[in-house]
Amino acid sequence: MKLFNDLADFSAPEVADLLQLAGRLDEKPEPRALQGKVLSLLFLSPSLRTLASFQAAMIRLGGGAFVISPDMSIHGLETRPGIVMDGMAAEHIREAVPVIASYGDAIGIRAFAERRNLDVDVTDTEFNALRSLVDKPLINMESAINHPCQSLADWKTLDDLSVPKRGKFVLTWAYHPRALPLAVPAATLHMAAMRGMDVTLCRPEGFELPDAVMAKAHAAAEQSGGQITESTDPGTATEGAHVIYAKSWSSTRHYGQRHEDEALRNELEHWCVDEPWFANAEPACHFMHCLPVRRGVVVSDRVLDGPRSVVVAEARNRMLVQMAVLHRMMAG
Amino acid sequence: MKLFNDLADFSAPEVADLLQLAGRLDEKPEPRALQGKVLSLLFLSPSLRTLASFQAAMIRLGGGAFVISPDMSIHGLETRPGIVMDGMAAEHIREAVPVIASYGDAIGIRAFAERRNLDVDVTDTEFNALRSLVDKPLINMESAINHPCQSLADWKTLDDLSVPKRGKFVLTWAYHPRALPLAVPAATLHMAAMRGMDVTLCRPEGFELPDAVMAKAHAAAEQSGGQITESTDPGTATEGAHVIYAKSWSSTRHYGQRHEDEALRNELEHWCVDEPWFANAEPACHFMHCLPVRRGVVVSDRVLDGPRSVVVAEARNRMLVQMAVLHRMMAG
Amino acid sequence: MKLFNDLADFSAPEVADLLQLAGRLDEKPEPRALQGKVLSLLFLSPSLRTLASFQAAMIRLGGGAFVISPDMSIHGLETRPGIVMDGMAAEHIREAVPVIASYGDAIGIRAFAERRNLDVDVTDTEFNALRSLVDKPLINMESAINHPCQSLADWKTLDDLSVPKRGKFVLTWAYHPRALPLAVPAATLHMAAMRGMDVTLCRPEGFELPDAVMAKAHAAAEQSGGQITESTDPGTATEGAHVIYAKSWSSTRHYGQRHEDEALRNELEHWCVDEPWFANAEPACHFMHCLPVRRGVVVSDRVLDGPRSVVVAEARNRMLVQMAVLHRMMAG
Repeated sequence: MKLFNDLADFSAPEVADLLQLAGRLDEKPEPRALQGKVLSLLFLSPSLRTLASFQAAMIRLGGGAFVISPDMSIHGLETRPGIVMDGMAAEHIREAVPVIASYGDAIGIRAFAERRNLDVDVTDTEFNALRSLVDKPLINMESAINHPCQSLADWKTLDDLSVPKRGKFVLTWAYHPRALPLAVPAATLHMAAMRGMDVTLCRPEGFELPDAVMAKAHAAAEQSGGQITESTDPGTATEGAHVIYAKSWSSTRHYGQRHEDEALRNELEHWCVDEPWFANAEPACHFMHCLPVRRGVVVSDRVLDGPRSVVVAEARNRMLVQMAVLHRMMAG
Repeated sequence: MKLFNDLADFSAPEVADLLQLAGRLDEKPEPRALQGKVLSLLFLSPSLRTLASFQAAMIRLGGGAFVISPDMSIHGLETRPGIVMDGMAAEHIREAVPVIASYGDAIGIRAFAERRNLDVDVTDTEFNALRSLVDKPLINMESAINHPCQSLADWKTLDDLSVPKRGKFVLTWAYHPRALPLAVPAATLHMAAMRGMDVTLCRPEGFELPDAVMAKAHAAAEQSGGQITESTDPGTATEGAHVIYAKSWSSTRHYGQRHEDEALRNELEHWCVDEPWFANAEPACHFMHCLPVRRGVVVSDRVLDGPRSVVVAEARNRMLVQMAVLHRMMAG
Repeated sequence: MKLFNDLADFSAPEVADLLQLAGRLDEKPEPRALQGKVLSLLFLSPSLRTLASFQAAMIRLGGGAFVISPDMSIHGLETRPGIVMDGMAAEHIREAVPVIASYGDAIGIRAFAERRNLDVDVTDTEFNALRSLVDKPLINMESAINHPCQSLADWKTLDDLSVPKRGKFVLTWAYHPRALPLAVPAATLHMAAMRGMDVTLCRPEGFELPDAVMAKAHAAAEQSGGQITESTDPGTATEGAHVIYAKSWSSTRHYGQRHEDEALRNELEHWCVDEPWFANAEPACHFMHCLPVRRGVVVSDRVLDGPRSVVVAEARNRMLVQMAVLHRMMAG
């Protein structure tokens, strides 16, 4: 495998194969599979799970990773093309990325969503610019519009929990004081559709996902036999749900417009997932979230601390599916 | 071993066994013992020795570690229970700790002493709350009231130096411009008592150690055949000493009261261990300190740079005893 | 090998031997050569390549590294001798360095140039003080006046590119808004002379390299059969060049005098290496730089992005030559 950027690049059997490998590496460790192999990790935005789980994954396979992030003492990184670098930044990403990649057998990059221009982010302009600088196997560790490691981990979590392939998967917007990227909702919607599920996207007016994101998810549903419905009412959206997956994101109506986004979002503090949201769901309905999650804001303590919540299992699966990806990229 | 939180949880023979293993791993390395094994390291307060020595310990045994600390770019960690997270912190310790633990075969946690309420710190409320979130083998890398890795390393250092089991061990308060935690003095007093030594705790009025700490140390002395004396006079306390172990700590009379603590402490700048402190000690009396130490404040340069000082040996033993603990937790 | 501080400590055949080992480790990996071995890395100034390439080098050889730098949460490090530590810093380098060294089988240290007193920096006072605290194999990861890892990597790059031993090597000063250390120009001049090249040092008035640096390079040239010329005119200096190696550095006429340095340097913004600099060079003349480099300031985008630039190859060779050094220090 040369690129792990998007689940859409893989067929359903290929995904099944990766998940099977992830499970096998959990049960039968291979502590020498990547002996002497190096994973370069470049973080252009904050991380906890990704930072920890990729390092742990490499150690479990007998190799190792190093981390570079701009908050380290590294002179600052310039990203703008064609600029005269007479300011603070002493190094340009055009040198930094190839150099960092040159030290590894594979590289993982976390880029940021600029959240100024929706088209720029939906087409993953920033990440694709970084990609073009790398000639090693590359892992998208979250870009403006994708998060394939999270989606693969979530898919494994659904399988681990025996959530039916045709089960009802509700992806719901939730309140958060800040405008967050579209990567997780876009990737999650597509993942659930690709798994063949009965997906409901539940979000307030003004928080629709972009047309290109919806079209891609619909195509995946058509291929898999799943379906996608949209709703603005959590009460009806959650009826019969096997899974409620919460996530906050930016207003797409006012993308990059901070004040307009805030005005819209600040009316929506009641979009906090709590036990009543599960009233008409399946009795064993699970609560999912990619973390980090704000308690009492996105979801209530009682849901997060109760038996519905599988957020730690999702996070642990990050490590396992990444081990599978790394194994495919570097072993043998 | 599932928990390394307190030397008091171990019998003297069990400690001897750990120290023997530490010595053996120093002489006969086992670079494959922990192949593919991962240690999660969570630092909620600053560290140098602990940070470096645990990473080095895992590499020496063939595994590896990853580090998470709040000064990294990780969105901030909330620790207060039941809070509505609408401020800066984007993640709660209730998710972060189980997730970080889930990536490792064992986890080390350094907690902080809040230094507001003495009872809260003496009962290690903060660390115990973190402990309850972990279902993996757990190492206390310093909590409000304990530092078992330091104590085990110091025990090994005493053995390495052939300091007599019944030798005189003087634990003395020293001046420091800031109010520091009680973890090291509490753990050191108990360790020396458990080793069976003739322990003198030397501290100014107002810097007594808490009753619970004293009672625990007395119980250990009773068990081991050692004894504990208290003194406010370094001149008499150090008579016949085989070891002077210096450490500063907060006033317990004015615990959490910054101005009152300062008023008391600022009269005590002469509590800086210097050569005259050794005048009536055993000729070969050693100087010990857990580091970091402030030169010219806690101890004079000539003591620290002279032959009495064994502070670097203590620090190196941190790595070796931790290798023993990690080996017991994860090997085979 | 106990010390890798200066290429001048090695004979030309010894350098050739190291470069051969670097090449062999690239072609035939030895992922168990340093199993269980630890490299301590201490950074007293910022780094990207050094930070990443040493970690990657250790992993490739089956061992590992840990990193300590003052920007970590480690209480601050005091470096001044004989000081009463009643300020912010809680630990002195006199304890920190031996402790950090004690956890490794070798240690790499990056020191800083104080850039106040030229004699202090030219004699590497700071680094030598740190050296005296270490009793383990030691690598200079850049000091005030040396950067042997960079020089060895650059030598390998010249060999990889089949640049003739007697080819023309132009080391040219370039504009940069800040006064930078002398380590790279001093080390590069010596390396090219030691390789036997026809070296031209091209720098504006006021940016001469110190006498001791020149004398050492001349001695190397005499030994190798190379030669050294100085020039203040890039137009003539670059005639027939096989390599143009750009680097900015402090004014030595106004060393440590910020305003005077700036006044001089700010007249020299046209010292930005661009395509016309190669007009009279050999057609295949290479552009070299140690990175990080400021685009549009030190060198134009078109040179850096064009086929002349070998800066990424230089950076990758950092890892390979360091693997050779580490192998010599710790294997077998």
